[in-house]
Amino acid sequence: MAETSASPTLLLKDELDIVIPTIRNLDFLEMWRPFFQPYHLIIVQDGDPSKIIKVPGGFDYELYNRNDINRILGPKASCISFKDSACRCFGYLVSKKKYIFTIDDDCFVAKDPSGKEINALQQHIKNLLAPSTPFFFNTLYDPYREGTDFVRGYPFSLREGVPTAVSHGLWLNIPDYDAPTQLVKPLEKNTRFVDAVMTIPKGTLFPMCGMNLAFNRELIGPAMYFGLMGDGQPIGRYDDMWAGWCTKVICDHMGWGVKTGLPYIWHSKASNPFVNLKKEYKGIYWQEELIPFFQSAILPKDCTTVQKCYIELSKQVRAKLGKVDEYFIKLADAMVTWVEAWDELNQTGKSSEVPNGAAK
Amino acid sequence: MAETSASPTLLLKDELDIVIPTIRNLDFLEMWRPFFQPYHLIIVQDGDPSKIIKVPGGFDYELYNRNDINRILGPKASCISFKDSACRCFGYLVSKKKYIFTIDDDCFVAKDPSGKEINALQQHIKNLLAPSTPFFFNTLYDPYREGTDFVRGYPFSLREGVPTAVSHGLWLNIPDYDAPTQLVKPLEKNTRFVDAVMTIPKGTLFPMCGMNLAFNRELIGPAMYFGLMGDGQPIGRYDDMWAGWCTKVICDHMGWGVKTGLPYIWHSKASNPFVNLKKEYKGIYWQEELIPFFQSAILPKDCTTVQKCYIELSKQVRAKLGKVDEYFIKLADAMVTWVEAWDELNQTGKSSEVPNGAAK
Repeated sequence: MAETSASPTLLLKDELDIVIPTIRNLDFLEMWRPFFQPYHLIIVQDGDPSKIIKVPGGFDYELYNRNDINRILGPKASCISFKDSACRCFGYLVSKKKYIFTIDDDCFVAKDPSGKEINALQQHIKNLLAPSTPFFFNTLYDPYREGTDFVRGYPFSLREGVPTAVSHGLWLNIPDYDAPTQLVKPLEKNTRFVDAVMTIPKGTLFPMCGMNLAFNRELIGPAMYFGLMGDGQPIGRYDDMWAGWCTKVICDHMGWGVKTGLPYIWHSKASNPFVNLKKEYKGIYWQEELIPFFQSAILPKDCTTVQKCYIELSKQVRAKLGKVDEYFIKLADAMVTWVEAWDELNQTGKSSEVPNGAAK
Repeated sequence: MAETSASPTLLLKDELDIVIPTIRNLDFLEMWRPFFQPYHLIIVQDGDPSKIIKVPGGFDYELYNRNDINRILGPKASCISFKDSACRCFGYLVSKKKYIFTIDDDCFVAKDPSGKEINALQQHIKNLLAPSTPFFFNTLYDPYREGTDFVRGYPFSLREGVPTAVSHGLWLNIPDYDAPTQLVKPLEKNTRFVDAVMTIPKGTLFPMCGMNLAFNRELIGPAMYFGLMGDGQPIGRYDDMWAGWCTKVICDHMGWGVKTGLPYIWHSKASNPFVNLKKEYKGIYWQEELIPFFQSAILPKDCTTVQKCYIELSKQVRAKLGKVDEYFIKLADAMVTWVEAWDELNQTGKSSEVPNGAAK
């Protein structure tokens, strides 16, 4: 029984990296040891590079601090945020694996209603390996799950589904609220275990949280850029949102699926709502313009690769959002830099040229 | 506790009719007595009108058979199907209430994972009275539910939501599969209780099942037509699907919401897959053309009422689907007849002129 349920995880042992942005010792990994230890970790150290981050023994990892990022990317390092968990996307850049799972260091193993510990990574892998159904809603949710299927009235021509690019997992305990909601509901906890995975329909945007997220790097990696946040930027806590809006528009264009729902992790503590309010406040009013922008963004047919889509999107950001604030001009430039850095580090057949960080 | 949870139900006691299509004695109502007895029932008897349908004592109901339908609608009775549960929409036509809940007579009370009996009607009322969020996906599902809210990155301008027109409930035990899936998976049962209600995003179609369905009749009633099915028609078991596609397109145009998820009912027995295959087979290939038709249907801005939307849709059905099969010309005519019948029986301020069936 245990063997059967573990097999899909082990299947991808050499095809998936776990990316963790952090500013502290990674004691949280102890709880994840049974699930993460077979995998390679990419740790992106944020903030002061002279600080020593302790990683529990027995894990296979490489760790990059700001000095590594500057050394590896040179002038292109400007596209990687500093003092913000947005720096995690550097880990996506230097990975050579097909799949990425990224998790925050304040996230622990959750339990399902029967009390069993949830192997979040295994569920993400299931989500990524099963097709998505973005073109028509299935009322019994994921039709590929055991005990479920497509319901009456679901077109047969759509039942093969499409490749899944993103698997967005959820959080029990502390929900992912913005600062105003945190302030208004300081004690609210998410206690509801919703036993479902679903495809977010084509044409629908969603707020993608980076806390518990997996994706097919080979498919959507070049668009999984977490933007310019934190130190020297007018905004924070919109890194994952930005990546979510960009990737969803591009997945819709490319015909790939984005799933949300299971797995849950246990989110241990809410960040400070007063600090968050300062980071978020520009995002809170900018998003009123960002959402309509992404909802109406159309990518031309000749955008046949994610890179082409992303460059095209950067042009639209510059032209349309540049009028909202000059920050978006800087962001559009950074989007281009990101894709250039991606292509530099990910040249086909040249994986041996990958620069090393402080690989252990 | 019991009083609190019952109150939203009793709130609508005089504003909701329960519509039940049937060909047999309504013994199934015994199990629903605690939940349904305060409400008025509209029973639409299908098939032989000389057959006596027994209704358990203590229920307040009116019952219409084919003779009543013919008498009340005259020549317009042609739009009401015979020998198919599509006849249920006659009940929507003659109701004078703001809300409708319709349920099949092989549906029983389901239990939640804690073993508590589910008051399906009460959950539908909650769904209908709370707003919908069709313009952006909330990853924690219904943001208006207790213990939940909008997550970070959800635009504040969209948090008021829009009126809810339809609440689509689900089924434990026998899932609502088409005949081919029934044949392939004769023993499959739906045992998964997914504790969620969600808005189906704008622009996304879904397969609406009529087994366990509630709607705001004042908003969307004139579009809740179940089409021409059964006796004398080349198709069956697509009545609710047809209504679902039409109402979703119109709700999207009008800016109203459609929800799916809770409540579950217990669906007791699967219909015969061989009989179903005969009823469905044209629908199974027609739906490959119907879905793209509805996905691309655009209603002009001057369609400011549901009636105008529905007439416009009937024109598009005639023009585009008429080429698929002449059945759709007949159906387009019936759509117009339905709206005429609706307007005749639902003239504003003339509710006293409502014709009676065999009202008890």
